[in-house]
Formats: sequence, C-alpha cells, structure tokens
Amino acid sequence: MRIDGRDYRTIWRGADGGSVEVIDQSRLPHRFDIVALTTVDEAATAIRDMTVRGAPLIGATAAYGVALAMLEDTSDAFLEGSGALLNAARPTAVNLRWAVDRMRRRLSNVSAADRVEAAFHEAGVIADEDVAVCEAIGEHGARLIETAARPGKDRIDILTHCNAGWLCAVDWGTALAPIYKAHRKGLPVHVWVDETRPRNQGASLTAWELGKEGVPHTVIADNTGGHLMQHGQVDLCIVGTDRTTRAGDVCNKIGTYLKALAAHDNSVPFYVALPSSTIDWRIRDGVNEIPIEQRAPEEVTHITGLSADGALQTVRLTPEGSGAANYGFDVTPARLVTALITERGVCPASEPGLASLFGGEERAA
Amino acid sequence: MRIDGRDYRTIWRGADGGSVEVIDQSRLPHRFDIVALTTVDEAATAIRDMTVRGAPLIGATAAYGVALAMLEDTSDAFLEGSGALLNAARPTAVNLRWAVDRMRRRLSNVSAADRVEAAFHEAGVIADEDVAVCEAIGEHGARLIETAARPGKDRIDILTHCNAGWLCAVDWGTALAPIYKAHRKGLPVHVWVDETRPRNQGASLTAWELGKEGVPHTVIADNTGGHLMQHGQVDLCIVGTDRTTRAGDVCNKIGTYLKALAAHDNSVPFYVALPSSTIDWRIRDGVNEIPIEQRAPEEVTHITGLSADGALQTVRLTPEGSGAANYGFDVTPARLVTALITERGVCPASEPGLASLFGGEERAA
Repeated sequence: MRIDGRDYRTIWRGADGGSVEVIDQSRLPHRFDIVALTTVDEAATAIRDMTVRGAPLIGATAAYGVALAMLEDTSDAFLEGSGALLNAARPTAVNLRWAVDRMRRRLSNVSAADRVEAAFHEAGVIADEDVAVCEAIGEHGARLIETAARPGKDRIDILTHCNAGWLCAVDWGTALAPIYKAHRKGLPVHVWVDETRPRNQGASLTAWELGKEGVPHTVIADNTGGHLMQHGQVDLCIVGTDRTTRAGDVCNKIGTYLKALAAHDNSVPFYVALPSSTIDWRIRDGVNEIPIEQRAPEEVTHITGLSADGALQTVRLTPEGSGAANYGFDVTPARLVTALITERGVCPASEPGLASLFGGEERAA
Repeated sequence: MRIDGRDYRTIWRGADGGSVEVIDQSRLPHRFDIVALTTVDEAATAIRDMTVRGAPLIGATAAYGVALAMLEDTSDAFLEGSGALLNAARPTAVNLRWAVDRMRRRLSNVSAADRVEAAFHEAGVIADEDVAVCEAIGEHGARLIETAARPGKDRIDILTHCNAGWLCAVDWGTALAPIYKAHRKGLPVHVWVDETRPRNQGASLTAWELGKEGVPHTVIADNTGGHLMQHGQVDLCIVGTDRTTRAGDVCNKIGTYLKALAAHDNSVPFYVALPSSTIDWRIRDGVNEIPIEQRAPEEVTHITGLSADGALQTVRLTPEGSGAANYGFDVTPARLVTALITERGVCPASEPGLASLFGGEERAA
C-alpha cells in the first residue's frame, strides 16, 4: 500500500540484512514511525506491546523473529528457546504458533552455517504467501462490491468495523482488500468507518490507511450503523474475523454482531472476509464454544489522543469509583452472514458452503 | 436523589429568593459544581451551552428562566421577549416551548406587582409535576424489574443507554427511575451502562449518578451489549425516549436501535420509559417521519476527559484529514419494544396500547 507516495508493507528485512523493520502501530494515526528490530527479544516485545497487531502480521513478525534469533545464535537450543519466547508474547494468537512451528520445521535439517539465510528466506515466503492470500480475497470481494452498486446512486457505501486492513496483515488486509481493489478499478466506493471502541482501531488505523490510499471515508461512532442502514445509506458491510467455525459463525471485534443484526433487519448484505487460516475446523457453535477474552478495564475508562499542543495524552472518561468491563470480541452467528469471502472464492457461511471450497486436507491440518 | 449524603434536585430556587441554582452538567463526572442563575439571559445560556440538558430539565429551566425575567422587568414586553429568547436556546426541544407557553399563559392575567411570586410558584409547580411523573414511572417500572428476577441468579442485570436519569429531569429520571425504586426496595439490581458515544452521557452522567446513589453498575463500550445478551448477562433493558410516535416507535439516542435488535434476537425484554409529554400524536412512522439531528463532527473526532494532572483536556482521536458524521438519534420501531412505561402505567408499544392509557384529550393537546 502507499503512504505519501511510497509503497510499503507492514514488515520487511532491513537494508543492512541484520534487522527487520516494522511500522509502529501503537502510535498511529498521530505518529508514523518505523522501528528496527534487531533481536528475537525485540520481536517478541513488539508483538506483546502491540507495536504490531493483527493475526497475519503477528505470524509474519514471529517468523522474522526466528530469523533474528538465528543472527544471534544458530544453535538448536536457541532456536527452541526463541520459539517459546515468541509463542508466549500473545498466548491466544493462532497464527503465531503456526508461524513458529513452520520456521522450526524448516530449520531443523539446515546446517548452522546456512540457518540465517534459510530463516530469512522462509520468513519472506510466509510474508509473500500472506500477501497473495489477501490479494485473492480482494479480487473475489471486489466483484461483490461491483454488484452492490445501485443504479442512480453515485457512490457505493460500505460499512466496516475495527481494522482488517493492510496494517493487520503484510499488505492489502482482509476486509479492506476488496475495497482497495474496487477503488483501484475506479468504482466510487465510500467507507463508513466504525470508530470501534474501546481501542478505536477504526478511528485510528482504518481511517488512517484509507486516507493514505485516498479512499473516501467517514468515521462514525459505533452506535451509528443501524440508523444509516435504516435510511439506505449502507449498500454492504464487510468485516474481518479472528476465528471462524466450520459452520460459518465468526468471532470478530466486539460490536460486529450488532452491525450484523442491523444489516439483517434492513436487508443489507453482510460479508466476512477471511484467510482460511482463521477457520477452526474443530468447532461448530461459535457463541457456545469460543471463549471471549476480557481485557483491561482501563481501555474503556481511559483513552489516548492528540492534545492541542501536539502531545499524546491519556485522559479518564468515567467517574472515579465506576468500574468497567471490556470484552474483546463477540460472535456473529452464520445465519446473519450473507457470505464468506476467502482466498479461494466466495461461499455461503455454512458447513456445506465451506466444504465446497476447502477439502479434507485443510480440515485435518 | 442523594449526592454525598445530601438530597438534591437538578434545579431549585436559591435561598436568597433572587436566583435559581442548577448542577453544571457540562463538567460532570469530573467536577460537581452548582451554578447560580440570576437573569433570564443566564438561564438561556445554561440551556444553550448544555450546563443543563435533558428534555424535562430544559422545560423546568425555561420556566424558572421566565421567573428570573420577572425579577428584572415585569412588563408584558419583557415577558414576551424573554420567552422568545428562551425558545431560541434549543430550537428543537419540545418541552422548552411547552414550558414557556404555560408560563406566559399563567402570567398573562397577573398584575405586575404579583408576577415575580406567581412566576416562581408556577415554575415550582412545573418542577413538582415532573418529579411526580418520573416517580410514577419509577413505581410502574420497578414492578417489571421485580418480575425479571431469575431464580438462582443473585442479581438482576439491567442494560441502559445514554442518560435518562435524574440529571435529565428534576428528580428520579425516566429510564433510571424504575432502577432507583427497585434499588431502594432492596432488589439486587446491577446496571450495564453503555458509555454512549459520541457524547458519552452514559460514562459521564449515568455512571456518576448511579455511583452517587450507590447502585452497582459497570460501564461498557456501546459495542458490548449484544455479547452480554447472547450469554444471559442481561435480564432486561430500559431506555428513555426523546420522541415517541402514536404507534409506539421511539426516537432515542443513537445506538438504541442496535440494542433493541440484540434484545429481540435474544428474547431479552426491552422497555422504554417515558413521560407522556414525549408522545407526538401527529406522527405514526418514526423511521420515515422523524428528522434526525446531525451534530458537530468534532464530537466524534475529539473527546474530553481528565488528564493525570487533574485538568480537563480535549484530545483528537482521528487522523488529520478524516471526516466524521454525527447523527444524534435513531428510531427503534415499536415491533422491537416489549412495552412502554408511562406515568399512567405500562402498555404495549402500539396505537391500541397507548390508547388504553391516554384518551382523546391528550391527543388533541
């Protein structure tokens, strides 16, 4: 994607060959900083403190983290310990473990002398594969956007929630990939960006990356989508998912379910974009089988923004003595999802729908 | 209601007889300040800049504003001009015009010498009537809370949106009145408080007043209610309304509709509490007939809170260059409302339901 006229990914090997560079997402949209990681410890910290976030990007960062480890020490013991360190950085991230396991397997039969280059090569392959998957999602989804255009309406209004853009992946993103593809094809897309309280990934990340790419967009409070849909101001919704059941239930950022209800009530198509790596073939009923992470109440009671004098400032929103609860995700039942957009194509959010695209080998993996 | 062991209303005549005192709601929850108004101009400013807010309280403030005007000048011309000044302070507030008209009618046949005391008396009657209406809503609603108690569950979980508490009225409030009544009767109520972006009336006002009254409560992001309802953590919802159609559609703070959808999807009772003065008998279809106010985008892009050094600070949340839209209200169709709680009792949200409580005289008014 482009920032101020330059193409970027979210992670790449430094020009010196001995570092990995990432965009510091914890300071967006107010600061655009690039951070160099030079040790596996720094890679683990970047994952833990959310300098990088988003399932695909966490996986790629872990892979590059193993490569940084090999620069420090190519021994089997250090490879093992580095993997454990990275895995512990975000214990619930599925992609993290998957990437660490793949790197370990790839390096197990490589001699110590060749491990550095083999590791960087494999991390690059993982990153490239992620880009290809996201781009395929974008192509499939762009066709849905095209068909959502309504005669006599001069723009196509798309509502999205949270950030499932290129910042969460290596490039393109998942839910935003179809929007970028449609925009580059010249379709008149306009995006309603849910601010996505409490962490405000919509207001701070989605709005920022859409702005940098020149996609028209408007930030709204999370309360607003239902009203817009009642008044014909949303042509389709596209969101991401952190975990998808084999029946098509989707676990995504808290509040997704409310938007899906409103879309259903107003006959607005509600699409979920996902790399197939988010499908958990072992579970069927998302509401009852997916445990929902509770996060720190301070994310609700406090917020950080840019003060008039240009400093990042954290302020308290609630009265002293009032507690807060902070559930990170909710589950949208498959019955509210119009279709799933995957790298292999579009399918109904159902067990037969997913089976039509993914065979036995994925389920066994 | 009680604050730090003392009983308060939101508005009262000052002890000196020549002023009206109000709680400055624009600085809650971080500052509790009482402001004395001594002229009709100050009363109009307090309404305009939202030192006072909430339909019933705006009406009472306008009535007391007319009394302050009479302290300045008891002439017919000044009475007329003061009414116009007050009406212009919040052009869309139905209660404001109603209160000004009532004060003018009451004073029209009163001699100049008696106008000050007659005006303060009538303003006091308007305030007392509002308290009685809200208390009646509280009694009727408390019975619904009692029946929502579930065997084996040690608390009754109630979700509310925005602030329809005693701060929006003279005392008790509308949606919170049943909760206060239930709490005083010893029912184990616990309130989920939607923070209610963008103006955060839930996090700043509802949480504050529930805390002062000792009602257990937890602040949540507006995205959270659906997840809680899916998991049996909400026994009933109670919200207020700014305008109610004769068919029972309710126009309330933006986001109310999304919670009503979630309540319906999870068979959670969804109640709307209202003084009958909010019913607009002329209209039937809320979604199509009620124009929705758009407010300043800065309410979405910026937020004010308390910084670590104890100062009120405003920070920007969105990237430079990203616009925002700010719709103040949405409409919840009657089909999603379990029942309306009025000062005359509880009725279905329908034309026959409202007709069972309110006869021809109210509709003609």
